[in-house]
Amino acid sequence: MSIEIERKFLVTGAAWKRGAQGVRFRQGYLSTDTRRTVRVRTEGPRAVLTIKGPTVGVSRAEFEYEIPVDDANRMLDELCERPLIDKTRYRVEVDGAAWEVDEFHAENEGLVVAEIELTSADQAFVRPPWAGPEVSGDPRYFNANLIKHPYRTWDATGPGAPS
Amino acid sequence: MSIEIERKFLVTGAAWKRGAQGVRFRQGYLSTDTRRTVRVRTEGPRAVLTIKGPTVGVSRAEFEYEIPVDDANRMLDELCERPLIDKTRYRVEVDGAAWEVDEFHAENEGLVVAEIELTSADQAFVRPPWAGPEVSGDPRYFNANLIKHPYRTWDATGPGAPS
Repeated sequence: MSIEIERKFLVTGAAWKRGAQGVRFRQGYLSTDTRRTVRVRTEGPRAVLTIKGPTVGVSRAEFEYEIPVDDANRMLDELCERPLIDKTRYRVEVDGAAWEVDEFHAENEGLVVAEIELTSADQAFVRPPWAGPEVSGDPRYFNANLIKHPYRTWDATGPGAPS
Repeated sequence: MSIEIERKFLVTGAAWKRGAQGVRFRQGYLSTDTRRTVRVRTEGPRAVLTIKGPTVGVSRAEFEYEIPVDDANRMLDELCERPLIDKTRYRVEVDGAAWEVDEFHAENEGLVVAEIELTSADQAFVRPPWAGPEVSGDPRYFNANLIKHPYRTWDATGPGAPS
């Protein structure tokens, strides 16, 4: 068990992408209940099963187990809720700190989100110029919710509103 | 991944219990959706995370992973749906075949169920005298459903009816 403390920002522009190498993630959910999320993910050649508790402030209990890729693909194809999340994750270094930038595809095409993992909620960090509005506590951007209300269905008058 | 083929029976009487050794199981669910059940279980000194797909006839896709007991206890205490399932599992041999007899406690006290796992749906087996009515396909007896409608809430006029 670990405690996950993350800050999440919308990404503006494409400057962050210069030279960054991405890994394709395919992920789905066995539970999208935010009190007990269960995620199946293939990350390039490996696969993980991740269980998360409720978000309290910016932190969340997290349990992660590596599982056989064949099992993960079977769960993604046959068991997980629809649609799956399809995204490319880039690792971008900013002043020695590792950011993860997720560029979404398919039903969530157009959405690009950056996250930095911290060791304490009040840890200082350099915010790069391409990190736009913070959305850390905003449930619309939880991947589990991007299945129920994919980004492409958000309307112009109010993002997150079911279309 | 394995395919689970099980036949399940209500148990009558106590003759099955003679000399049988039981292991206490404490289990909870991160998803009780029968299309993608996610179960956390401590079985004596070990713990497992089990994912099951939808039941098709008497078989069901099943993925099982051993996890640290501390993780399981944390999930059972803080994340899983309420109430938890508390039962003692006995292994009973009948003509060389291993039966599992589950004696439920707490909210499901009074319920005793026996299961035999088969390698094919039409495999022959000896049915012991204490194996009463078959309930293999009956969703009321799924452990995931015994959380939503525990046995002790079933009324006399119709078992399984929410009380």
